[in-house]
Amino acid sequence: MEKKKLWGGRFSEGTDEFVEEFTESISFDKELALYDIKGSIAHARMLGKQGIIPKEDSEKIIKGLEEIKKEIEEGKFEWKKELEDVHMNIEKALIEKIGDTGGKLHTGRSRNDQVITAFRLYLKEETNNIINLLEELKKALLKKAEETVDIVMPAYTHLQRAQPIRLAHYFLAYLEMYNRDQERFKDNLRRIDQMPLGSGALAGVDFPLDREMTAKELGFSKIMRNSLDATASRDAIIEFLSNSAICMSNLSRQSEDLIIWNSTEFSFVELPDKLTTGSSIMPQKKNPDVLELIRGKTGRVYGDLIALLTIVKGLPMAYNRDLQEDKEPVFDAVKTLKGSIIGMTKIIEGLKPKKENMEKSAGGFALATDLANYLVNKGLPFRQAHHVVGQIVGYLTAQNRELESITLEELKKFSELFEEDALNILNPKYVADARKTFGGTAKERILEQIAFWKENLTEK
Amino acid sequence: MEKKKLWGGRFSEGTDEFVEEFTESISFDKELALYDIKGSIAHARMLGKQGIIPKEDSEKIIKGLEEIKKEIEEGKFEWKKELEDVHMNIEKALIEKIGDTGGKLHTGRSRNDQVITAFRLYLKEETNNIINLLEELKKALLKKAEETVDIVMPAYTHLQRAQPIRLAHYFLAYLEMYNRDQERFKDNLRRIDQMPLGSGALAGVDFPLDREMTAKELGFSKIMRNSLDATASRDAIIEFLSNSAICMSNLSRQSEDLIIWNSTEFSFVELPDKLTTGSSIMPQKKNPDVLELIRGKTGRVYGDLIALLTIVKGLPMAYNRDLQEDKEPVFDAVKTLKGSIIGMTKIIEGLKPKKENMEKSAGGFALATDLANYLVNKGLPFRQAHHVVGQIVGYLTAQNRELESITLEELKKFSELFEEDALNILNPKYVADARKTFGGTAKERILEQIAFWKENLTEK
Amino acid sequence: MEKKKLWGGRFSEGTDEFVEEFTESISFDKELALYDIKGSIAHARMLGKQGIIPKEDSEKIIKGLEEIKKEIEEGKFEWKKELEDVHMNIEKALIEKIGDTGGKLHTGRSRNDQVITAFRLYLKEETNNIINLLEELKKALLKKAEETVDIVMPAYTHLQRAQPIRLAHYFLAYLEMYNRDQERFKDNLRRIDQMPLGSGALAGVDFPLDREMTAKELGFSKIMRNSLDATASRDAIIEFLSNSAICMSNLSRQSEDLIIWNSTEFSFVELPDKLTTGSSIMPQKKNPDVLELIRGKTGRVYGDLIALLTIVKGLPMAYNRDLQEDKEPVFDAVKTLKGSIIGMTKIIEGLKPKKENMEKSAGGFALATDLANYLVNKGLPFRQAHHVVGQIVGYLTAQNRELESITLEELKKFSELFEEDALNILNPKYVADARKTFGGTAKERILEQIAFWKENLTEK
Amino acid sequence: MEKKKLWGGRFSEGTDEFVEEFTESISFDKELALYDIKGSIAHARMLGKQGIIPKEDSEKIIKGLEEIKKEIEEGKFEWKKELEDVHMNIEKALIEKIGDTGGKLHTGRSRNDQVITAFRLYLKEETNNIINLLEELKKALLKKAEETVDIVMPAYTHLQRAQPIRLAHYFLAYLEMYNRDQERFKDNLRRIDQMPLGSGALAGVDFPLDREMTAKELGFSKIMRNSLDATASRDAIIEFLSNSAICMSNLSRQSEDLIIWNSTEFSFVELPDKLTTGSSIMPQKKNPDVLELIRGKTGRVYGDLIALLTIVKGLPMAYNRDLQEDKEPVFDAVKTLKGSIIGMTKIIEGLKPKKENMEKSAGGFALATDLANYLVNKGLPFRQAHHVVGQIVGYLTAQNRELESITLEELKKFSELFEEDALNILNPKYVADARKTFGGTAKERILEQIAFWKENLTEK
Repeated sequence: MEKKKLWGGRFSEGTDEFVEEFTESISFDKELALYDIKGSIAHARMLGKQGIIPKEDSEKIIKGLEEIKKEIEEGKFEWKKELEDVHMNIEKALIEKIGDTGGKLHTGRSRNDQVITAFRLYLKEETNNIINLLEELKKALLKKAEETVDIVMPAYTHLQRAQPIRLAHYFLAYLEMYNRDQERFKDNLRRIDQMPLGSGALAGVDFPLDREMTAKELGFSKIMRNSLDATASRDAIIEFLSNSAICMSNLSRQSEDLIIWNSTEFSFVELPDKLTTGSSIMPQKKNPDVLELIRGKTGRVYGDLIALLTIVKGLPMAYNRDLQEDKEPVFDAVKTLKGSIIGMTKIIEGLKPKKENMEKSAGGFALATDLANYLVNKGLPFRQAHHVVGQIVGYLTAQNRELESITLEELKKFSELFEEDALNILNPKYVADARKTFGGTAKERILEQIAFWKENLTEK
Repeated sequence: MEKKKLWGGRFSEGTDEFVEEFTESISFDKELALYDIKGSIAHARMLGKQGIIPKEDSEKIIKGLEEIKKEIEEGKFEWKKELEDVHMNIEKALIEKIGDTGGKLHTGRSRNDQVITAFRLYLKEETNNIINLLEELKKALLKKAEETVDIVMPAYTHLQRAQPIRLAHYFLAYLEMYNRDQERFKDNLRRIDQMPLGSGALAGVDFPLDREMTAKELGFSKIMRNSLDATASRDAIIEFLSNSAICMSNLSRQSEDLIIWNSTEFSFVELPDKLTTGSSIMPQKKNPDVLELIRGKTGRVYGDLIALLTIVKGLPMAYNRDLQEDKEPVFDAVKTLKGSIIGMTKIIEGLKPKKENMEKSAGGFALATDLANYLVNKGLPFRQAHHVVGQIVGYLTAQNRELESITLEELKKFSELFEEDALNILNPKYVADARKTFGGTAKERILEQIAFWKENLTEK
Repeated sequence: MEKKKLWGGRFSEGTDEFVEEFTESISFDKELALYDIKGSIAHARMLGKQGIIPKEDSEKIIKGLEEIKKEIEEGKFEWKKELEDVHMNIEKALIEKIGDTGGKLHTGRSRNDQVITAFRLYLKEETNNIINLLEELKKALLKKAEETVDIVMPAYTHLQRAQPIRLAHYFLAYLEMYNRDQERFKDNLRRIDQMPLGSGALAGVDFPLDREMTAKELGFSKIMRNSLDATASRDAIIEFLSNSAICMSNLSRQSEDLIIWNSTEFSFVELPDKLTTGSSIMPQKKNPDVLELIRGKTGRVYGDLIALLTIVKGLPMAYNRDLQEDKEPVFDAVKTLKGSIIGMTKIIEGLKPKKENMEKSAGGFALATDLANYLVNKGLPFRQAHHVVGQIVGYLTAQNRELESITLEELKKFSELFEEDALNILNPKYVADARKTFGGTAKERILEQIAFWKENLTEK
Repeated sequence: MEKKKLWGGRFSEGTDEFVEEFTESISFDKELALYDIKGSIAHARMLGKQGIIPKEDSEKIIKGLEEIKKEIEEGKFEWKKELEDVHMNIEKALIEKIGDTGGKLHTGRSRNDQVITAFRLYLKEETNNIINLLEELKKALLKKAEETVDIVMPAYTHLQRAQPIRLAHYFLAYLEMYNRDQERFKDNLRRIDQMPLGSGALAGVDFPLDREMTAKELGFSKIMRNSLDATASRDAIIEFLSNSAICMSNLSRQSEDLIIWNSTEFSFVELPDKLTTGSSIMPQKKNPDVLELIRGKTGRVYGDLIALLTIVKGLPMAYNRDLQEDKEPVFDAVKTLKGSIIGMTKIIEGLKPKKENMEKSAGGFALATDLANYLVNKGLPFRQAHHVVGQIVGYLTAQNRELESITLEELKKFSELFEEDALNILNPKYVADARKTFGGTAKERILEQIAFWKENLTEK
């Protein structure tokens, strides 16, 4: 409330206060504190080893930083907005703690390479976290697919019943999508996992740093080759946001599916109680809040992506203060995406398909295409086959009958090509199993796919 | 840090905890606390007056709410995440304070109309704040225009010097742009300033509410006519975000101008020290941090807009939990836009044009077009006039001379139409003043415009 | 196909060809041809009247332009890509037609003010078209509301049945939304309907133009006051795109509603055959293609908005070639929005509600809240009332009974407060009509709203 | 013009016409014609080989398709809007050409898997084209870096001169960025290069297709494993758009650099005449149109990305007509990105650095940091060293002198640590070369990088 007043309709506070408020980043970049300290410790150790600063100074600095780290972890560290950002807060605390020696930490380093190093350490860890969470989601889908091989349901196009599939086929489809999401994050990791430290403000450093040593301590696989690029480019970060946006789009689609399936009208699925909200007096009402929030939060991640794309549009080389704005969208996307993946995993694990309702909806005229294919297989040209089946459908609807009610005798009146086995087509399960080509919904294909994924999930 | 661990690569915490964390909104919607209380007080008073609840209950509720309000204002109120949102926190506190009577506050009201009412109260106030801040910015521009009528500078197209203008003309151009921004917020206000309270969950209310009374107490100009619309639509909110994005785009353009003008190479302007950061040992370096942040923060407001547009895309009627996500983008845009307008106002107020540098750059071959126009005015067809001037320019550049160095005699060699007054054109100020048509950069036109704006700024 | 080859993996064509292809705009800006000619005719007439060019030249130019206009309208005009844009194509054609006099048309005008004038003329007309199309859509909704006052259906929150409403209430909700869309376009029109002509390249014009005269002939209500602003700002155009995006978001929501209602599971509505695609052999399948395309095309208009917001981000003053990119997003949004509004209008006009299905779904436990409210009205505190109804619901579900099956005797066992009239609540229509507060779904309220809109639609 | 009238303010045309116009895709998807035919030929050959259709039918179909292909390539094929899309146009033409046998082509295939197969074939080819174009751009940068190793210029932060670098270092920085862009497209290719053909409408196919055979003929590396996923997911396509947007953002940054460098005030670079537009009478004016258009067109690619992200948001499984809208954003991004990369390549190849101007700007107080580092190297703590240099700077500016004018004697007055070699620091080249750490701007580092890239560019 206070801040609101500060920047009310008429502003009277001094410029200094305004500038402090407008330019600070400590309110959000303290998220990077432990990564900043990790980077600083590696840098200090290297400075000592290289003799750029005396070894005992290096040790003093490292000890001081470790104490600060402990204070932060225990929630005892006091952040000061007037010190602007996380890095200055830590540096000042270090100097207070160990005296002027603390100032030597900044030798051969600039704020520009320091900040982006901490940010990359953070993003590397979180990308790995997301990759692991996606693995959990894939496992949940695989498990649910195993459980639902024997449930047949209608697949929809245009939200209209189209063809019967096995429910497992549906879960495996999302497994493929999230698998590609995971691949994208892995690919991205190769570009995130590169060390900018040692690039200075923009032009490199004129002290004899050992970048191999810091990279090794920090766990970076690669050292960035160009100091201008290392301090000024953000494309690997935008790539992370775009991967997040794409993953959210996949999650939003599955959320939509399940929200629709959860409606009274569809009644295809029972969602776990803990992930929905109900009403004591409206027992049928089970609001799929977690799914709705996943779907809704898709918007914020799209927004995060657009934010950073906009920031770098037309931004000249090299570092500009605009780039301070790169962090919040990433923090927001990380938190949102992780929560959404976890939420979906818990939903998948806990959902119970309503087999009976699904199977009831899988038959009927949705099978008409397959009846036509039956005739094609018997040699009738495609268009003629459709004509025959059109007549059958007309004949039945005129009598208000469903497709399943037809007899072989009746079928034969429309075409002599129909034989005993045509009646199989009135069974959705049979029809599903006829789709035997690789990639199809036949039970044997699905069992193969399940076996494939069992083999290929990172942890079995 | 802790939260990060909570949602690390492997999540082990219970579902309950996760759901509480994922679905809560109290961490941001407490921004609405005072507006929520304001709405509740009006509702309670009306319930009492209508006899829907006993008058003494109404008074007890109002007294309780006012105490809570005071606690919040004094920072003494304790927010609980397990109570999920601001409204529940306040309701629970009320019941703790005054007992079961507190529960009667919710009579004839639903969370759906309650939340959007508080949100609209908030947005109405902040939109008015923004309108006022834009007024300050316009005044700063007007004042700066008055001070700079007599400075001539080159206007640029393609970042190439194009034609001389008076610097005041530049400031008045942005005054026009921000004026339209302001108009847009005023137009938007008509759609924000409408009361949803009394719409219930979605279908209206079956108690005899007096919506006129609550609207009057809350200061709403209009009552929403359709309960479904009132609880489920967000278009007036998106309009606010889009107005904010457009305003930021204008601010980003002026930021870019001034960042370029602040470079050593242009040196057109000296920015106020307090709004830049310098270096003790690099005196020429004056980083325009506030301007860069305004330009960079444009990204976040574009992102806020996309977030809400995405949320409502394809969202069915009526309320869905996705809509909980409507608040953060708005809070973020409000804070960012207000800070950016204030920042730009302080920049404009404090900047000092470097007149000499501007005028030095205003002449030269940038005047060639005007020399051609001189001939057109004397009756020469446009294309021929250009041909003549092309020859003059070639003649001078071959001798490495600037346009200003030419004599009348030399001019006459190229065309007999040149007379004494042609030399005026070698003076940028003269050329600027020749653009006398309404809208042009001539001094008399600018003075008229300054007079116009003096008359028309809300507060003189 | 050819173009693809031109810019294949290895490009070998000359630079000239590439530049011509990359920088041309004639492929899209010929959409502006007639507006450009209109602007030119007004300009030429004014030049003649002011004596800036001889009257007979002015007349010759006008005659020439009118011939070109006719050729364009008849599809006989030949556009040449090497002439780059629509304005150059027309100017060259004019000179070919009437000789050097044609060159005088450009006196006192620049490409910069010429282009944006044509663009504003175009956008003004199309904005008016859109306003009119929205009026048609509102009329269709009003008509449909009149027809459906007596149909009761469940309203949904979280895609869960929530409360009974009258179907008319639903149509009126969208009428409100599209009405605000229309208001926004009207507000925008005040900022579009301003004439930039007479601003020159950026600094104004040094010929004695009569801008009042051209504004009058072109039908502009206002003349832009600042030449820099007039040629370089695009905020009123972005506002148009943002209004279009918001309108599409509303259309996408209604599309989603109707797509869901069109599913076999909901079966709430029959869509007009001509706006759906079916299958000869799957009679139940009625793909709502037009609605899906409206929903999908929402994406392209959001994209158009982001395109122009991105273009102006950080763009310095004044005109930059980047601004050539302002047209295609607008043309695309205009075409898409108009088509989508027409599509939705035709859908609304042609759809047939399935009354029986709607009413069947409107009852049941969705009425439980109202049963609780009944007790509140009788004086029972809110939470106790809920407790009582919870017990009733449990009692019935244990017996697999619906709420409607309960008797007064049974009710009385749970609370003595229940009387004869409690049974009314088991009737959805009664419940809907109880929501009598202004804005509610009671029949009398809806009839009032219908009367209100009949009074207020532009054309009755 | 005509279309505009069709959808004017009042629409009177019949529904049929409107629907045809609103739902057609032939106006853009004919871009896919040759890919569709390629897919069909492979499918037909496989059908024949598998005995699903008679071999002679298969051959007849292939022959017919090859004739149609030829007609299209020669521009003789007549596209009909009433046939809706490219696939229907070709199918109808085939049947006209070879009779009913043509209808057999569609055996074991659905429009859903057919369309996405053609689209993936197209996108695979274009992604390869883009990868090749990026290789050309990288080569141009490498060549330019080789030429400019010996030019020293100021690098900027905040558009303020910060530190001297070698110009080659700048070009190598962008080489790194575009190299990552290229990596991203290569990674993406693994997800694009997967065959959906054989997935049917959504559930797979009940004919014994040989998907290995078609995949081999079409050159796909992988066959999609799940038919639902294959027909309904678009994430690999969005990834392409997002890679394009990121690449455009890098191009926009370099465009901005060069536009600024091209200003009279900077005068760092001379752009190739053919890629700029000048004015016959304003010789100094060289509008960097191609660079401005690249910067501006960034907007359209961001818009394309948002378009497709919006389309899939909340879209339920499986195919929905919304997905028809996936093609135009991709076609637009492909064309824009290819043109922009070519444009930038030509710019880089043709630009001439103005060495003298660059070097003149590289010195001065920008060297002060290095003077302070000199003292740090001599053992003075960082903050004290800064204090000393601050005094020197103050001393010189008071006398209006540049840093380069100082003598060793003067330096020694401020600190005894200064020795002969301190004067080296007054030479920008020396200072640049001091940044010897890997990644720095020292000449030896740059030569190493150039050697590295020579080794690593795909084609030497």
